[in-house]
Amino acid sequence: MDGVTNGRTFRNGSLAEVSTPGRVAGPDEDISQEELGLAARNHGLLLEALRHDVTPPGLHYVLVHYDIPYVPPAEADTWTLTVGGLVREPLVLDLSALYSLPPVTHRVTMECAGNGRARLTPRPVSQPWLVEAVGTADWTGVPLRTLLAEAGVEPDAVEAVFTGADHGVERGVEQDYRRSLTLKDATAADREVLVAYEMNGAPLPPQHGHPLRLVVPGWYGMAHVKWLRDITLTGTPFTGFQQSVAYRFRQSPDEPGDPVTRIAPRALMVPPGFPDFMSRTRVVRPGPLRLEGRAWSGHAPVTKVEVSTDDGGSWQEAELDPPDGRPGHAWSWRHWEAHWTATPGTHVLTARATDAAGNTQPVTQPWNRGGFGNNLVQRIPVLCAEVDGSSSTHSRPA
Amino acid sequence: MDGVTNGRTFRNGSLAEVSTPGRVAGPDEDISQEELGLAARNHGLLLEALRHDVTPPGLHYVLVHYDIPYVPPAEADTWTLTVGGLVREPLVLDLSALYSLPPVTHRVTMECAGNGRARLTPRPVSQPWLVEAVGTADWTGVPLRTLLAEAGVEPDAVEAVFTGADHGVERGVEQDYRRSLTLKDATAADREVLVAYEMNGAPLPPQHGHPLRLVVPGWYGMAHVKWLRDITLTGTPFTGFQQSVAYRFRQSPDEPGDPVTRIAPRALMVPPGFPDFMSRTRVVRPGPLRLEGRAWSGHAPVTKVEVSTDDGGSWQEAELDPPDGRPGHAWSWRHWEAHWTATPGTHVLTARATDAAGNTQPVTQPWNRGGFGNNLVQRIPVLCAEVDGSSSTHSRPA
Repeated sequence: MDGVTNGRTFRNGSLAEVSTPGRVAGPDEDISQEELGLAARNHGLLLEALRHDVTPPGLHYVLVHYDIPYVPPAEADTWTLTVGGLVREPLVLDLSALYSLPPVTHRVTMECAGNGRARLTPRPVSQPWLVEAVGTADWTGVPLRTLLAEAGVEPDAVEAVFTGADHGVERGVEQDYRRSLTLKDATAADREVLVAYEMNGAPLPPQHGHPLRLVVPGWYGMAHVKWLRDITLTGTPFTGFQQSVAYRFRQSPDEPGDPVTRIAPRALMVPPGFPDFMSRTRVVRPGPLRLEGRAWSGHAPVTKVEVSTDDGGSWQEAELDPPDGRPGHAWSWRHWEAHWTATPGTHVLTARATDAAGNTQPVTQPWNRGGFGNNLVQRIPVLCAEVDGSSSTHSRPA
Repeated sequence: MDGVTNGRTFRNGSLAEVSTPGRVAGPDEDISQEELGLAARNHGLLLEALRHDVTPPGLHYVLVHYDIPYVPPAEADTWTLTVGGLVREPLVLDLSALYSLPPVTHRVTMECAGNGRARLTPRPVSQPWLVEAVGTADWTGVPLRTLLAEAGVEPDAVEAVFTGADHGVERGVEQDYRRSLTLKDATAADREVLVAYEMNGAPLPPQHGHPLRLVVPGWYGMAHVKWLRDITLTGTPFTGFQQSVAYRFRQSPDEPGDPVTRIAPRALMVPPGFPDFMSRTRVVRPGPLRLEGRAWSGHAPVTKVEVSTDDGGSWQEAELDPPDGRPGHAWSWRHWEAHWTATPGTHVLTARATDAAGNTQPVTQPWNRGGFGNNLVQRIPVLCAEVDGSSSTHSRPA
């Protein structure tokens, strides 16, 4: 494995009690304390923040497998990225070396591969996302192609393996977080992979990979290795935990499964009106309303968004903003809007996206044991009601 | 009520279906989809971020009752704060007027009043915090005292009522988020209340109240009204929803209850070692370990932190960092550390704080129907195990 191992299983039998195999919830099983423990740490986009073209960092979804590695301010200067394995010239790069290379900025929509998992029946037990594990940012860094060219990749290399500094146990396997890309994906011209050091023009926040992370446009989040420490070129495909055990599409636990790669199309709507605190049901007044949202796909540009205000009974085509022609924005979401005249009663709003490769969001769940790549349409319950006055009788400023 | 109302209940009966009274979970009831819906939006401090003296904004806890009001960049310039009611000179202040007043910065630890709720038995059904609803930031703004002096408070005023721009329904009551302080609390010299416009030296992020919020040192989060629009001086105590219905200590639903005010003492520990992804159980190697964390209280300075490595069976006193004498830091948490020699097997680590007013954290739950002010000690399950090698055989850089 050219110096890159797959993680080791524990000799000590007691670990089996605290690190158990993946499982699917029983038919009447509500969210467990373990799932809540993940939900309290990781967080999604608050859906009203879909109004922002670029998601403010604290509103962008965050999924941390283990702990955020702590990098004291003084040590960020001594952080190094190594590039080794099947290269002619191994590199040891500190941040100033990376800053001195020509920077590139890409606007990229990133989504967790497990988005939507908690709405599946039966529910795979893991980070319990509803629909909100998404965000868009401007990522600035050095193209991976530049670094690989500088190191000189040997002809027998087939993959690049990326190692993060985050360390933990998953299903009995102790590991640093580690993923690979084929050389073709690592050097693609139309989805330029970055070693990024800035998010929205500022140094990466700790939870987004400070000081370095990978950005792989169009791919689900598991590919965008955070707290990047090492890139190793290998002569055989990487078979580590996050590549061959986790992040596979499987119907039964014993099949090898297909790898999770690019983002399936999805549209999300800004929930209209205002919410009830606990149920999050939306309340709107009768009359005309503007509906809006974002849509994206990691396979091809989004070409159509449709909206339903009767829970999928009928659909109207939404108006897409003109394409953002900038090449660095090719894998960013697209804004859309539609109009609706709300009438008293209850309604379920939904939207679905279609991309140029012909992929459309399903209205029935695409189930697999890991709950990956599930792009079932969002459903927003809305109550349209006349109300007895507003909450305040004093005039609101501005 | 001098122009400030308490919110109105819906005339339309159908709202009762989407906005229900507060309740307590049944004995075997796991976390519901509604609680998960809140947990997916709001987020806590990732506990490893207790290492930061000042919490990076995206890691600070966030609790949003309704939606984050959307303020397009161009409109932040037209945001106004009104000061009215029982004042000689009503004020209409835009941001530049606030920026022109002498700024003050306070380092304040903020905690949600519902922190710890999801660990209570029986569990009050609301935002299901475990222990992580806390954060510390440097808040910059104008002392509220300055603004009240400029407006000239009339002698018959007794309270200041603060209105945010966030709007929603809670238990059948449509409302803008609104809370009051007595004039004594609003103008206290030892807990100077701020109208803040910066967090950690940058404009407030949207989820922390952009462009203006109240900061009330030592008080639970419900007092720190975000997206602040209006301050109204009143001649009678405010009895709005968030003051008289929510945020009360009650054992039964029909009692008036005592108000939730200042933060009870709490110590939190950085979970040592590394986690299992799903169970979050910590894994450590045998041998000496440094334990560390933070402790705070809104009643008085923290004077003692004790640590237990046997689930409360015995306690050792932790070493507190010297007091940070700066007056603006009086209501910020204090760092502590302790030492432990881990031996193979399972352990439960815990810590408890005591303040100068003699308040100590309980080791049995202080229960109330809202799950407020619950400062039951944190429990961290740890497995100490020898492992079969590390996850990687290639040398780690730096």
